[in-house]
This record gives sequence, C-alpha cells and structure tokens, in this order.
Amino acid sequence: MNSRPLLLVGLLASLFATTAIAQQDKEAGKRPPLVIQEQGSFFVGGRNVKSETLSTLPAYAPSGTITVEQMYVHYQIPLDAKRVPVTLIHGCCLTGKSWETTPDGRMGWDDYFVRKGYPVYVVDQVSRGRSAADPTLINSVKLGKTPADQTPPVFFAAHEAAWAIFRFGSEYPKTHPGMQFPLESQQEFWKQMVADWIGTLPTPNPTVRALSELAIRLKGTVLISHSQAGVYPFQTAELETRGIASIISIEPGACPAAQSDLKPYLGFPILVLFGDYVDLSPRWAPRLRACREFVEAARRAGGKAELLVLPEIGIKGNSHMLMQDKNSLEIADLLIAWIDKNVVN
Amino acid sequence: MNSRPLLLVGLLASLFATTAIAQQDKEAGKRPPLVIQEQGSFFVGGRNVKSETLSTLPAYAPSGTITVEQMYVHYQIPLDAKRVPVTLIHGCCLTGKSWETTPDGRMGWDDYFVRKGYPVYVVDQVSRGRSAADPTLINSVKLGKTPADQTPPVFFAAHEAAWAIFRFGSEYPKTHPGMQFPLESQQEFWKQMVADWIGTLPTPNPTVRALSELAIRLKGTVLISHSQAGVYPFQTAELETRGIASIISIEPGACPAAQSDLKPYLGFPILVLFGDYVDLSPRWAPRLRACREFVEAARRAGGKAELLVLPEIGIKGNSHMLMQDKNSLEIADLLIAWIDKNVVN
Repeated sequence: MNSRPLLLVGLLASLFATTAIAQQDKEAGKRPPLVIQEQGSFFVGGRNVKSETLSTLPAYAPSGTITVEQMYVHYQIPLDAKRVPVTLIHGCCLTGKSWETTPDGRMGWDDYFVRKGYPVYVVDQVSRGRSAADPTLINSVKLGKTPADQTPPVFFAAHEAAWAIFRFGSEYPKTHPGMQFPLESQQEFWKQMVADWIGTLPTPNPTVRALSELAIRLKGTVLISHSQAGVYPFQTAELETRGIASIISIEPGACPAAQSDLKPYLGFPILVLFGDYVDLSPRWAPRLRACREFVEAARRAGGKAELLVLPEIGIKGNSHMLMQDKNSLEIADLLIAWIDKNVVN
Repeated sequence: MNSRPLLLVGLLASLFATTAIAQQDKEAGKRPPLVIQEQGSFFVGGRNVKSETLSTLPAYAPSGTITVEQMYVHYQIPLDAKRVPVTLIHGCCLTGKSWETTPDGRMGWDDYFVRKGYPVYVVDQVSRGRSAADPTLINSVKLGKTPADQTPPVFFAAHEAAWAIFRFGSEYPKTHPGMQFPLESQQEFWKQMVADWIGTLPTPNPTVRALSELAIRLKGTVLISHSQAGVYPFQTAELETRGIASIISIEPGACPAAQSDLKPYLGFPILVLFGDYVDLSPRWAPRLRACREFVEAARRAGGKAELLVLPEIGIKGNSHMLMQDKNSLEIADLLIAWIDKNVVN
C-alpha cells in the first residue's frame, strides 16, 4: 500500500472513531444505573520459571525468576445476584475486550449479563492481554544462544485475512448481504486485535487448567467460549467436570470428536451456537458439520446437548463476532433464556 | 534453582493465594453496593501498518495490514458523578491491573475512586496488556529476513531484580522494616507482571499522544501516572495542555529537567508523590532529588507544583507499589483531598 491510500484509511478511521464515540455518548444517557455488589480482578494458575534471557537491556537483569501461564480474571457481581456465574472466554488474536463495548459503542455482553443478574467473569487467555507471555526464547535468539529459526511463532491476523475468518464477507473487502457486524466502525475493531502467542504454549493450553481452577472456585459457572477458545471448556471437562454448570460454545474452532469418549460431556447442558453465512465459508462449514455430529453423538449417549444455527431460527446476518453484531443483545437474551431453562441457578 | 526449592515456592504460593482469596471473600460482604451510571472500554490512537511477516504459521497469512500503537481504555462513571475524571496510567512491566484488586484481595484504586464519585479511566500503555504490541520484526528474524541481533528488545523484570526496584527491600529477599507491601501475597503480585515492549516503540512513546487525545475527549482529567509512565503526562503537556486538569505523578521514573522550558507545566496543579525508603535506593534517591529540583523550579516560575514524600508527613513503610500497599486507601484519600483542594471540579 502506498502512502496515499494509507492516509485515506487514516482519515476514514478518524471519522469512524468519531461516529463510534458519538454513538457511545448518545447511548450513555439512556442506560439505567447498574448496582454492583463487588468487582475486582485476580489471577488463577501460573508457575515460576528461571531464565538467563529475561532482558537484553542494561537497566534490567538478564537472570532471575518470572511467573508465566497465569490467567487474568476480571469480575463483577451485581447486587442480589441470584443466577449462576458466567465466564466469558475470548477467541483468537483477541483479549477479554471482545466482550466489552462494541466497536460502534454499544453495550457489551460483560455489562449486559451483569445487568441481567449474573456474576460475570471475563478472562484474558494465558499469554494474551493482561496474562503474561514468555519472551525469554526471543531474547535467547537476540543473544545468539538459540538459532533464529527457533524463534517462537507469534502471529498477528491481518485485517484482510481476518475479514473472511470473521465472515464479514467471502473475501476482503466484499461484504455478505445483510451483514450485522458494524463494519462502519471496523477500525475500532481492528484495534482489539493483538499478537497471538498460542504456539509458544504447552498442550493442553494452560488456560484449560486455569478454567478448571476458576470453575471450582466459583462452585459452578457457565463457561461461554468463542472460536479458538471453544475447545478449552471441553478440555477442562476432560480434566475435571467439577464446577462446570454448563458449556456454551460460540462458533468453536473445534468440538470434541463425535467418536471420542463422550463421558466428560454428559453431566451438564451444552449449547453450541453458530451465526450466518457458515455454508459459504470453507473454514467454518466443516466445523459446523463436525459440531453437529458431536452434538448428535452426545445426545445419543444420554447428554443434554443442543446445536443452534441462528438463521435456522430466523435470526439472520450474524458474523463470527456475533457478540459485537448489531443484534448482539438479542443473541444475549437468547442465551439467557437458554440458561434459565437448562441450567440450575 | 533446583526442583526442590521450586516445589517449595509452589506450595507456599498456593498457600498465599488461598489466603488472598479468603481475604477477598471476607471483604466482599463488607462493601456497600456501588452504583454505576455507565461503564465500558474503547481505544485511542493507533495506526495501520502493512507487513509481510505477520505470521510464520500456515493457518494465518504472512502478509496484510494490522493496527498498532493504540491505547486501551476502560472506564466507569458513577451515578451523579460530580468530580473531574481521573486517568490511571500504570508503570513498567505491568498493565492496568496494577490499579485493581490488590495482591492480598483488598479494594483497588480503580474501584475506590469510582466509589468516591470520580469517573475513572484505566489504560493499558501502548504495547502492553490489551494494547497490541507489534511482533512483525520477531517473525522477520524467524524467517531469516532480519539478523538475529536486531530482534526487538522485549524484557521481563525478574522477581529478584524487581524486589529492589519496587523497594520491598535493599535486595532480594531482604525486607525493609515496617514494609507496607503485602509480601505474604507476593506470588499474586508477580502474576501481574508482563513483558515490556517499550524498547520497540518510537519516541515519544505513542502513549503520550494517546493520553492527549483522551484528555481532550474527557474535557479535563487528572492524569495519575506511576513510575515508568511518570514522564508521559509531562510529555503530553509539552504536546498540548488542553484537557489536562492536573498531573499527579507517583514515583516517576523521571520528572522534567529543572533547566528545561517549564512553560507547559505552569497552567495546572502538579503533585509529585514518593513513598518511603527512597534514600536507601541508588535507583530512586537521585530521581527524588531531580523531581524536587523540578518542583522548586516550577514554583519559582509561577507554577502550582508540590512534592510530597510520605514519611515526611508521618506516613511510613510505603514501597514503590504504594497503590497496593496495606495503607493504599489512606494514600488514595490523601490524593482525593489534594484534588478537592487544588483541582477545579
């Protein structure tokens, strides 16, 4: 891209940002006050590691102990909370910000679920956002102690590539007709994206055990995951089902295989949710099919599993980022109704 | 460190974590409800860059556009907010988490200032936490396109080194007598630390312009900075004083030079605050002296600047992390009284 289109993009971005702010300021006055009993944040998990390559700068010692693989958790508990806590687990290349104010300045699910009486826990996956990533191998490469080709894989999804992955359209910058994602505020959305260190982590991702620790501490929670994180709550259940009141998997990158041992998934209600345009996506269509097979297998095995594809119940136009789509609160209401019906409060 | 002491550290860490949780659970019931008019998050700043080294993984394209140098801002506005907004800007190797729940589970300043009637804005510095860092040069090294020694400097402060920097004691693991930092919960504190990408950013740090944009948008805010971030609000004032109602600089890594052009700092009240044990620290003693000179020079030039060293007014035992020390809310009250007296609300 030469500098002229970039300048144009910058100018348009400023305009979009101003629009988002205006929308936000307009909405603010409309919201009834929210009464919080308690809020705060903490970490679960984490381990201490010693390294000789913590720093290549003279001001900071290269050698010592750091703590990595912990998971940041922010929570709010409304006054007279009566419902089961929900835990919101963001997807690839994003952080807990996914669930907050939408790119066009509307209320996020974090706020909305609290207003509906749920204690809400929002996490940053291990190595993302406020949960530390481990840069020691990078410094080892800089110091010539590790070959350059062993630099850890840290990737950043491009707007152009993310466009199709998030199903804004079949390819950048084409848009699926009836798209509910607020593309006029896309620049604010791109700002949510961060580098993804997942390839530097052990398997299973330490987020899985951290979610288990959190669920046990909460004595029951609905694990609501998105995309890349979709597999984590299922892996958490494999580890231990204690504390898992339910799993709601929004457009998971993968469901458990229909042929796998389904026992860990039979003791609590499961909802797998997909948006629109899935059949048009070579990435998502096979995932939806595999999830459908998993849900059917779980039901046959006696589990309480459901698959919901939004256009099949008349809700159209939803992208992969459906918690930010223009009808995001309508979808939240759908989940709340499902929780009310299926999960013991 | 061999594995046996590490195991011990792990066991002790679990015990400390349990203590912190118990403390948190005990405190929760005591707090009166908090009434929020509005909460949410957004970004300021940011620019689009094109790169050919976004990814080395087959699932994500190496080429495309990403957005970097934006600053994440989370905010809460209490019901009937009458006071000027405060903006909390964390220091080195940390994120906005610094201002939230303390390591031993007590209320953070983010919550406390809202409860005292202030709209509160908590940022993650550019390239930290939920504000994206740019990993493209790292991937360029991995692909052999950039020499290994040009890998960007990404450092992580070790517990042992941070110990003296945060003035828990003169050296790890010695403790200054009367220490107010909750060292029994230190493992929870270490989990707050993240890799610091500051060396990869242009000068001045893009956080500076982002703070200016935020201040202008808020039509006046008290910029409360800590440590590494101490210099940013002063640099913001150099850029433009619009929107800066006041600067409160908590143990800044640097004050402006007393010999510099002081004009940008004369139009609003300034408070520079230091904790205890400063004279015992080769890192902090000269910084305090230089800040004292700056404050005196600003006063001589007609500015409204103050320096407060806590033990000089009888408040003893404060570490560098004084917003997390056991008397953290007493210090918050001190700042609130200062704002009430000095800043137009």
